[in-house]
Amino acid sequence: MKYPQGVKRNQVNTPRADKEINYGQRGMTLEKDLDKTNQFYLDTKRAIIHKKPTPVQIVNVDYPSRKKAKITEAYFKVPSTSDYNGLYKGRYIDFEAKETRNKTRFPFINIHAHQVEHMRACHNQGGIVFIIVKFTVHDEVYLYPFEHFVKHWDAYLGNGRKSITYADIKAESILLPIKYNPRYDYLAAVDEFYFE
Amino acid sequence: MKYPQGVKRNQVNTPRADKEINYGQRGMTLEKDLDKTNQFYLDTKRAIIHKKPTPVQIVNVDYPSRKKAKITEAYFKVPSTSDYNGLYKGRYIDFEAKETRNKTRFPFINIHAHQVEHMRACHNQGGIVFIIVKFTVHDEVYLYPFEHFVKHWDAYLGNGRKSITYADIKAESILLPIKYNPRYDYLAAVDEFYFE
Repeated sequence: MKYPQGVKRNQVNTPRADKEINYGQRGMTLEKDLDKTNQFYLDTKRAIIHKKPTPVQIVNVDYPSRKKAKITEAYFKVPSTSDYNGLYKGRYIDFEAKETRNKTRFPFINIHAHQVEHMRACHNQGGIVFIIVKFTVHDEVYLYPFEHFVKHWDAYLGNGRKSITYADIKAESILLPIKYNPRYDYLAAVDEFYFE
Repeated sequence: MKYPQGVKRNQVNTPRADKEINYGQRGMTLEKDLDKTNQFYLDTKRAIIHKKPTPVQIVNVDYPSRKKAKITEAYFKVPSTSDYNGLYKGRYIDFEAKETRNKTRFPFINIHAHQVEHMRACHNQGGIVFIIVKFTVHDEVYLYPFEHFVKHWDAYLGNGRKSITYADIKAESILLPIKYNPRYDYLAAVDEFYFE
Protein backbone atom coordinates (compact mmCIF):
# COMPACT_ATOMS: atom_id res chain seq x y z
CA MET A 1 0.00 0.00 0.00
CA LYS A 2 1.39 3.36 -1.00
CA TYR A 3 0.98 6.27 1.38
CA PRO A 4 0.09 9.60 -0.14
CA GLN A 5 2.64 11.39 2.06
CA GLY A 6 5.85 10.16 3.59
CA VAL A 7 5.14 12.29 6.62
CA LYS A 8 2.02 10.33 7.41
CA ARG A 9 3.87 7.02 7.29
CA ASN A 10 6.42 8.30 9.77
CA GLN A 11 3.65 9.37 12.07
CA VAL A 12 2.20 5.88 12.03
CA ASN A 13 5.48 4.11 12.68
CA THR A 14 7.08 6.34 15.31
CA PRO A 15 4.68 8.03 17.66
CA ARG A 16 7.42 9.93 19.50
CA ALA A 17 5.23 11.26 22.25
CA ASP A 18 4.08 7.74 23.20
CA LYS A 19 7.60 6.45 23.02
CA GLU A 20 8.77 8.98 25.59
CA ILE A 21 5.96 7.96 27.88
CA ASN A 22 7.10 4.37 27.50
CA TYR A 23 10.62 5.29 28.56
CA GLY A 24 9.15 6.68 31.73
CA GLN A 25 7.23 3.50 32.39
CA ARG A 26 10.30 1.40 31.80
CA GLY A 27 12.19 3.61 34.21
CA MET A 28 9.62 2.91 36.89
CA THR A 29 10.03 -0.83 36.59
CA LEU A 30 13.64 -1.41 37.68
CA GLU A 31 12.44 -2.13 41.21
CA LYS A 32 9.68 -4.44 39.95
CA ASP A 33 12.06 -6.22 37.60
CA LEU A 34 14.46 -6.79 40.51
CA ASP A 35 11.59 -8.02 42.70
CA LYS A 36 10.70 -10.58 40.05
CA THR A 37 14.33 -11.55 39.62
CA ASN A 38 14.72 -12.05 43.38
CA GLN A 39 11.52 -14.10 43.51
CA PHE A 40 12.92 -16.30 40.73
CA TYR A 41 16.13 -16.78 42.73
CA LEU A 42 14.08 -17.68 45.82
CA ASP A 43 11.87 -20.13 43.94
CA THR A 44 14.84 -21.87 42.34
CA LYS A 45 16.78 -21.84 45.67
CA ARG A 46 19.63 -20.00 44.01
CA ALA A 47 19.78 -17.16 46.55
CA ILE A 48 17.81 -15.45 49.29
CA ILE A 49 17.75 -11.75 48.50
CA HIS A 50 15.03 -9.32 49.52
CA LYS A 51 14.33 -5.63 49.15
CA LYS A 52 14.04 -4.05 52.57
CA PRO A 53 10.75 -2.35 53.38
CA THR A 54 10.65 1.43 52.92
CA PRO A 55 11.55 2.95 56.29
CA VAL A 56 8.61 4.88 57.70
CA GLN A 57 8.20 6.86 60.92
CA ILE A 58 4.76 5.94 62.24
CA VAL A 59 3.10 8.76 64.21
CA ASN A 60 -0.52 7.72 64.52
CA VAL A 61 -2.47 4.47 64.21
CA ASP A 62 -6.25 3.97 64.40
CA TYR A 63 -7.70 0.69 65.63
CA PRO A 64 -11.25 0.57 64.23
CA SER A 65 -13.26 -2.23 65.81
CA ARG A 66 -13.36 -5.43 63.75
CA LYS A 67 -10.99 -3.91 61.22
CA LYS A 68 -7.26 -4.04 60.92
CA ALA A 69 -5.09 -1.29 62.32
CA LYS A 70 -4.90 1.75 60.02
CA ILE A 71 -1.87 4.03 60.01
CA THR A 72 -3.21 7.56 59.60
CA GLU A 73 -0.02 9.59 59.98
CA ALA A 74 3.47 8.54 58.98
CA TYR A 75 6.51 10.00 57.24
CA PHE A 76 9.23 8.62 55.02
CA LYS A 77 12.60 8.25 56.73
CA VAL A 78 16.01 8.45 55.07
CA PRO A 79 17.29 4.87 54.76
CA SER A 80 20.47 4.13 56.71
CA THR A 81 21.43 1.06 54.69
CA SER A 82 21.15 -0.01 51.08
CA ASP A 83 17.86 -1.38 49.79
CA TYR A 84 18.74 -4.99 49.04
CA ASN A 85 20.63 -7.66 50.93
CA GLY A 86 20.78 -11.38 51.39
CA LEU A 87 22.72 -14.57 50.99
CA TYR A 88 24.25 -16.22 47.92
CA LYS A 89 26.64 -19.20 47.85
CA GLY A 90 27.24 -18.70 51.56
CA ARG A 91 28.26 -15.06 51.03
CA TYR A 92 26.61 -11.88 52.24
CA ILE A 93 25.26 -9.78 49.33
CA ASP A 94 24.41 -6.08 49.63
CA PHE A 95 23.38 -3.67 46.89
CA GLU A 96 21.57 -0.53 45.95
CA ALA A 97 19.57 -0.04 42.73
CA LYS A 98 19.53 3.35 41.00
CA GLU A 99 18.33 4.64 37.68
CA THR A 100 19.00 7.83 35.79
CA ARG A 101 17.52 9.53 32.73
CA ASN A 102 20.84 11.20 32.11
CA LYS A 103 22.47 9.95 28.86
CA THR A 104 26.10 10.72 29.63
CA ARG A 105 26.49 10.71 33.42
CA PHE A 106 25.33 8.98 36.57
CA PRO A 107 24.77 11.77 39.14
CA PHE A 108 25.42 11.06 42.82
CA ILE A 109 22.33 13.04 43.75
CA ASN A 110 20.19 10.05 44.71
CA ILE A 111 22.80 8.26 46.81
CA HIS A 112 23.03 9.22 50.47
CA ALA A 113 26.47 9.46 52.05
CA HIS A 114 25.53 7.08 54.87
CA GLN A 115 24.35 4.51 52.33
CA VAL A 116 27.81 4.62 50.75
CA GLU A 117 29.43 4.31 54.20
CA HIS A 118 27.17 1.32 54.91
CA MET A 119 28.30 -0.30 51.65
CA ARG A 120 31.94 0.50 52.43
CA ALA A 121 31.62 -1.19 55.84
CA CYS A 122 30.03 -4.28 54.25
CA HIS A 123 32.76 -4.40 51.62
CA ASN A 124 35.47 -4.11 54.27
CA GLN A 125 33.95 -6.99 56.25
CA GLY A 126 33.92 -9.36 53.30
CA GLY A 127 30.49 -8.77 51.78
CA ILE A 128 29.80 -8.71 48.04
CA VAL A 129 28.68 -5.14 47.39
CA PHE A 130 27.59 -3.41 44.19
CA ILE A 131 25.19 -0.93 42.65
CA ILE A 132 22.75 -1.85 39.92
CA VAL A 133 22.63 1.19 37.63
CA LYS A 134 20.00 1.65 34.95
CA PHE A 135 20.42 4.21 32.19
CA THR A 136 16.79 4.47 31.14
CA VAL A 137 17.44 6.34 27.88
CA HIS A 138 19.89 3.66 26.73
CA ASP A 139 17.72 0.95 28.30
CA GLU A 140 20.88 -0.56 29.78
CA VAL A 141 21.37 -2.04 33.24
CA TYR A 142 24.84 -2.51 34.75
CA LEU A 143 26.20 -4.30 37.77
CA TYR A 144 28.72 -1.78 39.06
CA PRO A 145 31.07 -3.31 41.66
CA PHE A 146 31.50 -1.18 44.78
CA GLU A 147 35.28 -1.50 44.36
CA HIS A 148 35.05 0.72 41.25
CA PHE A 149 32.22 2.97 42.36
CA VAL A 150 33.97 4.00 45.57
CA LYS A 151 37.02 5.36 43.75
CA HIS A 152 34.79 7.92 42.06
CA TRP A 153 32.90 8.63 45.27
CA ASP A 154 36.08 9.28 47.22
CA ALA A 155 37.35 11.52 44.42
CA TYR A 156 34.02 13.39 44.61
CA LEU A 157 34.51 13.97 48.33
CA GLY A 158 37.85 15.56 47.35
CA ASN A 159 37.15 17.37 44.06
CA GLY A 160 33.39 17.88 44.18
CA ARG A 161 32.69 16.18 40.81
CA LYS A 162 29.12 15.06 41.40
CA SER A 163 28.78 12.27 38.87
CA ILE A 164 30.43 9.33 37.13
CA THR A 165 30.54 9.35 33.34
CA TYR A 166 28.54 6.81 31.38
CA ALA A 167 31.80 5.83 29.67
CA ASP A 168 33.49 5.04 33.02
CA ILE A 169 30.55 2.94 34.19
CA LYS A 170 30.45 1.10 30.85
CA ALA A 171 34.16 0.32 31.22
CA GLU A 172 34.03 -0.74 34.88
CA SER A 173 30.73 -2.66 35.00
CA ILE A 174 29.11 -5.78 33.69
CA LEU A 175 26.16 -5.18 31.35
CA LEU A 176 23.17 -7.30 32.37
CA PRO A 177 21.36 -8.92 29.42
CA ILE A 178 17.58 -8.40 29.58
CA LYS A 179 15.80 -11.74 29.65
CA TYR A 180 12.27 -12.91 30.28
CA ASN A 181 12.93 -14.62 33.61
CA PRO A 182 15.00 -13.77 35.54
CA ARG A 183 14.65 -10.31 34.02
CA TYR A 184 18.16 -9.21 35.03
CA ASP A 185 20.31 -12.19 35.95
CA TYR A 186 22.67 -10.16 38.11
CA LEU A 187 23.95 -13.25 39.96
CA ALA A 188 25.54 -14.42 36.71
CA ALA A 189 27.48 -11.14 36.79
CA VAL A 190 28.29 -11.73 40.48
CA ASP A 191 29.67 -15.15 39.51
CA GLU A 192 31.77 -13.57 36.81
CA PHE A 193 33.17 -10.77 38.94
CA TYR A 194 33.42 -12.33 42.41
CA PHE A 195 33.66 -16.10 42.00
CA GLU A 196 35.80 -16.70 38.88
CA MET B 1 20.36 -2.76 113.07
CA LYS B 2 17.63 -4.99 114.35
CA TYR B 3 14.18 -4.81 112.73
CA PRO B 4 11.17 -5.12 115.02
CA GLN B 5 9.48 -7.50 112.58
CA GLY B 6 10.87 -9.80 109.99
CA VAL B 7 7.89 -9.05 107.80
CA LYS B 8 8.73 -5.38 107.64
CA ARG B 9 12.26 -6.11 106.49
CA ASN B 10 10.94 -8.27 103.69
CA GLN B 11 8.60 -5.49 102.62
CA VAL B 12 11.46 -3.02 102.41
CA ASN B 13 13.70 -5.29 100.41
CA THR B 14 11.25 -6.78 97.95
CA PRO B 15 8.49 -4.45 96.81
CA ARG B 16 6.72 -7.14 94.76
CA ALA B 17 4.18 -4.89 93.09
CA ASP B 18 6.84 -2.52 91.75
CA LYS B 19 8.94 -5.43 90.65
CA GLU B 20 6.15 -6.77 88.49
CA ILE B 21 5.68 -3.40 86.85
CA ASN B 22 9.38 -3.32 86.14
CA TYR B 23 9.18 -6.72 84.52
CA GLY B 24 6.62 -5.33 82.13
CA GLN B 25 8.77 -2.35 81.22
CA ARG B 26 11.78 -4.55 80.73
CA GLY B 27 9.73 -6.79 78.46
CA MET B 28 9.03 -3.82 76.19
CA THR B 29 12.69 -3.06 75.71
CA LEU B 30 14.09 -6.19 74.02
CA GLU B 31 13.91 -4.46 70.62
CA LYS B 32 15.50 -1.28 72.00
CA ASP B 33 18.20 -3.27 73.79
CA LEU B 34 19.01 -5.08 70.54
CA ASP B 35 19.04 -1.76 68.64
CA LYS B 36 21.60 -0.42 71.11
CA THR B 37 23.60 -3.63 70.92
CA ASN B 38 23.66 -3.46 67.12
CA GLN B 39 24.69 0.21 67.22
CA PHE B 40 27.55 -0.77 69.55
CA TYR B 41 28.62 -3.46 67.08
CA LEU B 42 28.48 -0.94 64.22
CA ASP B 43 30.45 1.71 66.13
CA THR B 44 33.16 -0.76 67.11
CA LYS B 45 33.22 -2.25 63.56
CA ARG B 46 32.51 -5.67 64.99
CA ALA B 47 29.50 -6.42 62.77
CA ILE B 48 26.93 -4.76 60.51
CA ILE B 49 23.52 -5.89 61.68
CA HIS B 50 20.29 -3.92 61.31
CA LYS B 51 16.65 -4.41 62.14
CA LYS B 52 14.60 -4.23 58.97
CA PRO B 53 11.94 -1.52 58.80
CA THR B 54 8.39 -2.60 59.63
CA PRO B 55 6.74 -3.56 56.34
CA VAL B 56 3.89 -1.21 55.53
CA GLN B 57 1.46 -1.09 52.59
CA ILE B 58 1.16 2.59 51.67
CA VAL B 59 -2.23 3.49 50.22
CA ASN B 60 -2.33 7.29 50.28
CA VAL B 61 0.25 10.08 50.54
CA ASP B 62 -0.38 13.83 50.81
CA TYR B 63 2.14 16.30 49.47
CA PRO B 64 1.44 19.55 51.29
CA SER B 65 3.32 22.45 49.70
CA ARG B 66 6.64 23.30 51.39
CA LYS B 67 6.21 20.36 53.76
CA LYS B 68 7.43 16.82 53.57
CA ALA B 69 5.21 14.08 52.18
CA LYS B 70 2.70 12.79 54.71
CA ILE B 71 1.41 9.23 54.56
CA THR B 72 -2.28 9.40 55.48
CA GLU B 73 -3.35 5.80 54.88
CA ALA B 74 -1.24 2.70 55.30
CA TYR B 75 -1.51 -0.79 56.75
CA PHE B 76 0.87 -3.18 58.46
CA LYS B 77 1.95 -6.11 56.29
CA VAL B 78 2.95 -9.56 57.48
CA PRO B 79 6.75 -9.75 57.27
CA SER B 80 8.09 -12.33 54.82
CA THR B 81 11.55 -12.54 56.38
CA SER B 82 12.98 -12.33 59.88
CA ASP B 83 13.53 -8.93 61.46
CA TYR B 84 17.31 -8.79 61.70
CA ASN B 85 20.10 -9.58 59.30
CA GLY B 86 23.62 -8.57 58.46
CA LEU B 87 27.26 -9.51 58.24
CA TYR B 88 29.68 -10.80 60.89
CA LYS B 89 33.19 -12.17 60.32
CA GLY B 90 32.38 -12.51 56.64
CA ARG B 91 29.29 -14.62 57.40
CA TYR B 92 25.63 -13.88 56.76
CA ILE B 93 23.65 -13.52 60.02
CA ASP B 94 19.86 -13.80 60.23
CA PHE B 95 17.67 -13.80 63.32
CA GLU B 96 14.30 -13.11 64.82
CA ALA B 97 13.73 -11.70 68.34
CA LYS B 98 10.75 -12.84 70.39
CA GLU B 99 9.67 -12.44 73.97
CA THR B 100 7.10 -14.22 76.06
CA ARG B 101 5.53 -13.65 79.47
CA ASN B 102 4.95 -17.38 79.77
CA LYS B 103 7.03 -18.91 82.60
CA THR B 104 7.22 -22.50 81.41
CA ARG B 105 6.78 -22.46 77.62
CA PHE B 106 7.68 -20.50 74.51
CA PRO B 107 4.52 -20.54 72.35
CA PHE B 108 4.87 -20.54 68.56
CA ILE B 109 1.98 -18.11 68.26
CA ASN B 110 4.06 -15.09 67.31
CA ILE B 111 6.20 -16.81 64.70
CA HIS B 112 4.85 -16.93 61.17
CA ALA B 113 5.37 -20.10 59.15
CA HIS B 114 6.96 -18.21 56.26
CA GLN B 115 9.44 -16.60 58.66
CA VAL B 116 10.52 -20.07 59.74
CA GLU B 117 10.79 -21.16 56.10
CA HIS B 118 12.90 -18.07 55.40
CA MET B 119 15.20 -18.99 58.29
CA ARG B 120 15.37 -22.60 57.09
CA ALA B 121 16.40 -21.44 53.61
CA CYS B 122 19.11 -19.17 55.07
CA HIS B 123 20.35 -22.00 57.29
CA ASN B 124 20.47 -24.38 54.32
CA GLN B 125 22.49 -21.88 52.28
CA GLY B 126 25.15 -21.46 54.96
CA GLY B 127 23.86 -18.53 56.97
CA ILE B 128 24.12 -18.28 60.77
CA VAL B 129 20.50 -18.35 61.93
CA PHE B 130 19.00 -18.15 65.41
CA ILE B 131 16.18 -16.78 67.52
CA ILE B 132 16.75 -14.46 70.46
CA VAL B 133 14.16 -15.51 73.04
CA LYS B 134 13.35 -13.42 76.09
CA PHE B 135 11.45 -14.90 79.03
CA THR B 136 10.33 -11.63 80.61
CA VAL B 137 9.20 -13.17 83.91
CA HIS B 138 12.59 -14.84 84.41
CA ASP B 139 14.33 -11.79 82.91
CA GLU B 140 16.44 -14.17 80.83
CA VAL B 141 17.48 -13.82 77.21
CA TYR B 142 18.69 -16.80 75.19
CA LEU B 143 20.35 -17.26 71.84
CA TYR B 144 18.49 -20.26 70.47
CA PRO B 145 20.24 -21.77 67.42
CA PHE B 146 17.90 -22.48 64.51
CA GLU B 147 19.33 -26.02 64.37
CA HIS B 148 17.60 -26.79 67.68
CA PHE B 149 14.50 -24.65 67.22
CA VAL B 150 13.59 -26.28 63.92
CA LYS B 151 13.41 -29.79 65.43
CA HIS B 152 10.58 -28.59 67.67
CA TRP B 153 8.93 -26.66 64.84
CA ASP B 154 8.94 -29.68 62.53
CA ALA B 155 7.55 -31.83 65.35
CA TYR B 156 4.82 -29.23 65.83
CA LEU B 157 3.89 -29.48 62.14
CA GLY B 158 3.45 -33.20 62.81
CA ASN B 159 2.01 -33.42 66.33
CA GLY B 160 0.44 -30.00 66.80
CA ARG B 161 2.32 -29.20 70.04
CA LYS B 162 2.31 -25.41 69.85
CA SER B 163 5.20 -24.53 72.11
CA ILE B 164 8.70 -25.40 73.28
CA THR B 165 9.24 -25.90 76.98
CA TYR B 166 11.37 -23.46 78.94
CA ALA B 167 13.46 -26.44 80.07
CA ASP B 168 14.21 -27.45 76.46
CA ILE B 169 15.20 -23.92 75.50
CA LYS B 170 17.39 -23.62 78.60
CA ALA B 171 19.14 -26.88 77.65
CA GLU B 172 19.59 -26.04 73.94
CA SER B 173 20.46 -22.34 74.09
CA ILE B 174 23.16 -20.01 75.29
CA LEU B 175 22.08 -17.64 78.07
CA LEU B 176 23.10 -14.05 77.27
CA PRO B 177 24.53 -12.16 80.25
CA ILE B 178 22.96 -8.72 80.69
CA LYS B 179 25.61 -6.02 80.54
CA TYR B 180 25.64 -2.26 80.26
CA ASN B 181 26.96 -2.02 76.72
CA PRO B 182 26.47 -4.05 74.63
CA ARG B 183 23.31 -4.90 76.55
CA TYR B 184 23.12 -8.45 75.16
CA ASP B 185 26.42 -9.49 73.63
CA TYR B 186 24.86 -12.11 71.39
CA LEU B 187 27.89 -12.22 69.08
CA ALA B 188 29.91 -13.71 71.94
CA ALA B 189 27.34 -16.54 71.91
CA VAL B 190 27.62 -16.74 68.12
CA ASP B 191 31.39 -17.12 68.52
CA GLU B 192 30.86 -19.88 71.07
CA PHE B 193 28.29 -21.82 69.06
CA TYR B 194 29.36 -21.23 65.45
CA PHE B 195 33.06 -20.37 65.44
CA GLU B 196 34.67 -22.52 68.14
